[in-house]
Amino acid sequence: MNKIITIGRELGSGGRELGKRLADLLGWAYYDSEIISGIAQKTELAESYVKQIVERSPVASFPITIGHSFFPVVNPGMDQTTNIYIEQSNIITEMADMSNCVIVGRCADYILRDRNPFKIFVYASPQSRIERCRKKRPEDAALSDRQMWRNIRRVDRHRAKYYMFYTGLKWGHKNNYDICINTTNADIKSVAEALVKMLAPEQN
Amino acid sequence: MNKIITIGRELGSGGRELGKRLADLLGWAYYDSEIISGIAQKTELAESYVKQIVERSPVASFPITIGHSFFPVVNPGMDQTTNIYIEQSNIITEMADMSNCVIVGRCADYILRDRNPFKIFVYASPQSRIERCRKKRPEDAALSDRQMWRNIRRVDRHRAKYYMFYTGLKWGHKNNYDICINTTNADIKSVAEALVKMLAPEQN
Repeated sequence: MNKIITIGRELGSGGRELGKRLADLLGWAYYDSEIISGIAQKTELAESYVKQIVERSPVASFPITIGHSFFPVVNPGMDQTTNIYIEQSNIITEMADMSNCVIVGRCADYILRDRNPFKIFVYASPQSRIERCRKKRPEDAALSDRQMWRNIRRVDRHRAKYYMFYTGLKWGHKNNYDICINTTNADIKSVAEALVKMLAPEQN
Repeated sequence: MNKIITIGRELGSGGRELGKRLADLLGWAYYDSEIISGIAQKTELAESYVKQIVERSPVASFPITIGHSFFPVVNPGMDQTTNIYIEQSNIITEMADMSNCVIVGRCADYILRDRNPFKIFVYASPQSRIERCRKKRPEDAALSDRQMWRNIRRVDRHRAKYYMFYTGLKWGHKNNYDICINTTNADIKSVAEALVKMLAPEQN
């Protein structure tokens, strides 16, 4: 069975950078926005629409058990979201079938739970996240720190709701991961090298 | 300034083993039960009594700000506990003054916060913790898993209350640590080697 690393991450914590570095060091495939493109292709929906659904909160009153059973959906407003989640599950499973890989976000830790992925969660202090977001999005330069933080928190809330909705688990709670890494004072390159040592000590 | 690693840990998670391995690999001092002995010597109290105080919950209604200010205590029942905490702070600070070191438990992460320690929290699944406790305490062989887990949870609660009381922070919450490691499926030797690579990449 292929080896899999999944990465959950707070916005602005450097989770994508860590994922890319790990994939490069290990020589494994790396999947992030490719998942969104794949869903868009399969569902014939616009990529921007799929992205919006995946990064938006699902209807909160819907039972959280849907991720376990896929029973027929009675709320028509949920159909599209559920179809997208099902396609997401299929695509992530196909990716994991193809080769060893690193997958960022999209409930991959839960979708692939039977394959025993190594589950990482990446987080950082508010200030560190704001700074990283500023570097990545120069178009937001006019926003104050307070406005930036409000936007970041909104993404956090959506990710947490999405994760809870499909998995029944608390996003970012350490019990759902093998390791949680605070990148506030960390050098992500060193973290990636250390994780490779932990996961594949024979490579070092 | 000396380098410091602090380790918070759930009972039965292997935090002590990880701390010892780290200290050995780095050639640093390792402190755990030495702290209790030191307090007992300084306060002229029995070691067993100090251990009981340090591992017991403080009075829950007492203000949590005591760790910040050490104002005079009006509740006489709290005097002894507070004296012990003050001695604990002094001893931990002396240890950190002497050399690079790894310190397990006892709010060392908070006591030494101005020295920017690398803060680790170690945790594991209930079953894994029960198994580790069984190996370490053959005298508890007669206890059922349910009884073992009840005892483990009691220690967790005490550690969490003690930590909250003196630091105002939530014990085991990832935001209070640089890294949180789930040892359920981990080889602690590999984890220690990887952490050394992360902390002192030039040694590898």
